[in-house]
Amino acid sequence: MAVTSHDVAKLAGVSQATVSRALRDDHRVSEATRKKVADAARALGYVRSEVGRSLSTRSTHQVAMVADLDNALYPRLVAPVHDALMDLGYRMVVFAERGDEMSAYERLLDGSVDGAILTTSELHSSLPHMLHGKGFPFVQMNRVSALIDADSVTADNSGGGAAVGRLLHECGHRRIGAILGPEQASSSRDREAGFRGALDEAGLELPPRRVSRGRFAYEDGSAGFRRIMTQADPPTAVFCVTDMLAVGALNEARQMGLEVPGDVDIVGFDDLDVAGWPCFQLTTVRVDFPLMARFAAQRIVARLSGDRSAEAVHETVPTRLVLRETHAVNS
Amino acid sequence: MAVTSHDVAKLAGVSQATVSRALRDDHRVSEATRKKVADAARALGYVRSEVGRSLSTRSTHQVAMVADLDNALYPRLVAPVHDALMDLGYRMVVFAERGDEMSAYERLLDGSVDGAILTTSELHSSLPHMLHGKGFPFVQMNRVSALIDADSVTADNSGGGAAVGRLLHECGHRRIGAILGPEQASSSRDREAGFRGALDEAGLELPPRRVSRGRFAYEDGSAGFRRIMTQADPPTAVFCVTDMLAVGALNEARQMGLEVPGDVDIVGFDDLDVAGWPCFQLTTVRVDFPLMARFAAQRIVARLSGDRSAEAVHETVPTRLVLRETHAVNS
Repeated sequence: MAVTSHDVAKLAGVSQATVSRALRDDHRVSEATRKKVADAARALGYVRSEVGRSLSTRSTHQVAMVADLDNALYPRLVAPVHDALMDLGYRMVVFAERGDEMSAYERLLDGSVDGAILTTSELHSSLPHMLHGKGFPFVQMNRVSALIDADSVTADNSGGGAAVGRLLHECGHRRIGAILGPEQASSSRDREAGFRGALDEAGLELPPRRVSRGRFAYEDGSAGFRRIMTQADPPTAVFCVTDMLAVGALNEARQMGLEVPGDVDIVGFDDLDVAGWPCFQLTTVRVDFPLMARFAAQRIVARLSGDRSAEAVHETVPTRLVLRETHAVNS
Repeated sequence: MAVTSHDVAKLAGVSQATVSRALRDDHRVSEATRKKVADAARALGYVRSEVGRSLSTRSTHQVAMVADLDNALYPRLVAPVHDALMDLGYRMVVFAERGDEMSAYERLLDGSVDGAILTTSELHSSLPHMLHGKGFPFVQMNRVSALIDADSVTADNSGGGAAVGRLLHECGHRRIGAILGPEQASSSRDREAGFRGALDEAGLELPPRRVSRGRFAYEDGSAGFRRIMTQADPPTAVFCVTDMLAVGALNEARQMGLEVPGDVDIVGFDDLDVAGWPCFQLTTVRVDFPLMARFAAQRIVARLSGDRSAEAVHETVPTRLVLRETHAVNS
């Protein structure tokens, strides 16, 4: 005979309702009771049915993370979001983004998840707007759409960009270049804006011939760097809005026989693992991604737990310069 | 009034059963009909309910991929598995592995997924064994458990390891070292076995002082390399069973002022993107991960589509040497 939640309740000495709540990690149940119920369930070999649970509560306790798995940043985001959601009693389902908003929209609304963390929004993305129209709970993380004011958790991109601008000025650079990401990515836009603001304040220019714009991949960094550096009057320092772009630029500099630093400084943004490898030792801007993940998980769970306030909540995680070896103070 | 599948059927001029089948990408429905139904569904703003579908078919059309998101290999596996499953009408749910087999077991069996692709099996993992006991469909990918004979898709690790052994012998090396992964990982075990076999045939030894064993991370590569190279009679060539270990070793070699090649050759395995970066140009063994993903997706879908044969199916994808710049023929 199949073991039921009533058997578990009996063994644990609690009510059947408490068993249900404990097994879905409801925070109204004490840690001690949850452990007692889990032990009893394990002893009896009891496995909850998610399908049954969906029926009784119309809730799946699953949150989708919409992610671009081809982007080097995402491994840094997926695991912390997974863990943060688990801590809050939710599971993460990864929806790999393949540039088709209608298909993401349909998958999100089909009842298999309660809410979503969107990490691939572009400024003109209509997905957040459409989800909002349906009353579907979501939080934008890392990047936002400009078409709607919805909950978001982002890095202080503008502050980080400004810090790089000030650093390069203080290092004595007067001819400065930049390798930027897609115009539709708010992260790139905000990093650029902060950077330009700091250069403006210092009376420095960022002329179009010293700017390259592409996607966020390694190849965009290497190709962009070569393009900028082969113009007349090339820059003595290049800000790359992501580490992957900076690594591409750094490799291209070596191919071109340029010393970094010396001939040219290169500064990145994100502080991925690769930035700290001895062969790169990239000066960059650290983003606290685990904190970003925690904030995003807490926000979506707050929405799913009944926070229906119309006001959008915007959280920003701090950024800070990490000074390694691809910049130098010039006399 | 909510739009139902009957409305879609009417507009598309097909039966309601055909709408259901078309919307779950059932291959019995022609491409043309599927498109007609999809267009009608879109025109009416119809969104299928997964919960409703689970009820009627007891199938979620979801497959879990159990993955270790901290391992650099996984970004190479997740996207192709996702796409291959999508092509077959299934969705991928990522379960991040956190070393707790009981919790993975419970999540897999709770009714939220139809089957699983396990990519983190260790030789003594009991998870595959337990799932088999419950009749839960799964396929092991990349790594396998030794405790059970179940469907698997792996690389020709032994063949790849042997190719590296022969290469190093042909390059003239006589003192050879190796940086290995966890003893519990079949991928590392098989790569090591193939490598040792080729050295044996060539009459070469792999003494313990030239072998380092750790996890698969960058740090294990750099620490292992330093340990091996600071012994008496250090090797002139080191085989690393993964690219991430090789990149760690390569960086450590540079820190130690060693030329690669010249003072020491380093060969990896996997052919991750990083292996092709100009600053590494790592000689390595390429694994066809997209093919592995496709095989794994086809295998699990075959099981879910009624293939109940007791015989386990084992598929192997080929590996081949990629000769870049971290080895050299010595006179």
